[in-house]
Amino acid sequence: MTQAEIKFVKSLSQKKFRDSSGLFIVEGEKLVAEALASRFTLERVYRREEIGETAMARISALSSPSPALALVRKPADLLQDNLPSTGLFLALDGIRDPGNLGTILRIADWFGISAVYASPDTVDLFNPKVVQATMGAIFRVRFHYTDIPVLCTSALQAGGQVYGTFLDGTRIYDRPLSDGSKAPSVIVIGNEANGISPEVAACVSERLFIPPYPADDPGSESLNAAVATAITVAEFRRR
Amino acid sequence: MTQAEIKFVKSLSQKKFRDSSGLFIVEGEKLVAEALASRFTLERVYRREEIGETAMARISALSSPSPALALVRKPADLLQDNLPSTGLFLALDGIRDPGNLGTILRIADWFGISAVYASPDTVDLFNPKVVQATMGAIFRVRFHYTDIPVLCTSALQAGGQVYGTFLDGTRIYDRPLSDGSKAPSVIVIGNEANGISPEVAACVSERLFIPPYPADDPGSESLNAAVATAITVAEFRRR
Repeated sequence: MTQAEIKFVKSLSQKKFRDSSGLFIVEGEKLVAEALASRFTLERVYRREEIGETAMARISALSSPSPALALVRKPADLLQDNLPSTGLFLALDGIRDPGNLGTILRIADWFGISAVYASPDTVDLFNPKVVQATMGAIFRVRFHYTDIPVLCTSALQAGGQVYGTFLDGTRIYDRPLSDGSKAPSVIVIGNEANGISPEVAACVSERLFIPPYPADDPGSESLNAAVATAITVAEFRRR
Repeated sequence: MTQAEIKFVKSLSQKKFRDSSGLFIVEGEKLVAEALASRFTLERVYRREEIGETAMARISALSSPSPALALVRKPADLLQDNLPSTGLFLALDGIRDPGNLGTILRIADWFGISAVYASPDTVDLFNPKVVQATMGAIFRVRFHYTDIPVLCTSALQAGGQVYGTFLDGTRIYDRPLSDGSKAPSVIVIGNEANGISPEVAACVSERLFIPPYPADDPGSESLNAAVATAITVAEFRRR
């Protein structure tokens, strides 16, 4: 492995180099196997037994370098800005933490979310920490960056609902939750520190609330964004 | 701030120095305020306006150093190994990721969990990344390292239940879930990679399962440990 090659792989930890090359890093034997089995194109796979322990440690972003690392081509964007006429969707309004975004994709995968949309200020999907945290869901969940207020408005115009959680919302257990089988249902997830932005909040048709216990005394002020996503989505899929 | 002082504060990112000094680091204006308002003892608070930007950057573990950092005394262990006769408890069986442990404490805080118990191989509660991820829940949730099989056995002997999630468990929505008001209820959370260990699984009286959607086709193989905790605990508190 040449110095230039090592430098190139390392550069892919930065968004600008992922954007210019169209490639991102997938690390770990299991994740590389999932990439190989997916519709994604693998440009190159580096294996420890070929390139040696030292080179592997240099290109790896993990504290214990794994036996395999792949350069994977970012897929052409398969989703349109137009919302499909039915389905249950997530709309991420400025998720910044890579671990949260990866975990949210894993939740979307488990609960059969039709597609995940994210505001342009959401962390990059191909950030290595996001890719790792998805545990492979990145190869299965449809994902698209778009303008969230526009998306939500079109859901409402199509006769659908836009849901969001707020501290002054109605208990999620007391409201009918549409799974999007007749018109699009969008669940908005707010930023970790600031919650749902005012522009997006203006499009929310159902303000929900995950009740703490005891009901009048939450210890914390809030739940982690991925945790709130999990509880909300599980409730939509509860039978 | 002397070089020796800087070196001492930085040493507290390692467990052995937290153990020998009995101190841990709390960083961020909001978290330091929560520590001040809590039953914890603050040994020292460093503020940017006092020690200067350079010293703050050196002692901070954050990429953007915050205006305040406190050295807080680890509390004397208030919990006994003996399980109380009633209550809803979490038992962590080898949680390794600091973000997951912090998030689980935040969930426990929101949902009024009586106490969180953890196996000795669980990540250290006072690890700076755990402290940050708790968002202050560390100052409110009762936490204790103990032998989890012994704890679970004593819950069963007291007429309580031990719950755990397994891929071959029964749908969580189809089982009665006791909130521990008459006898202790323990919810076991497994390790991120390996799930619940055989020794702990042997004490589980109710094997549960969080159903994916569609029911016969989970995209992912599993949910993140903190996400599974959130959905399970929310279901126990659902009214």
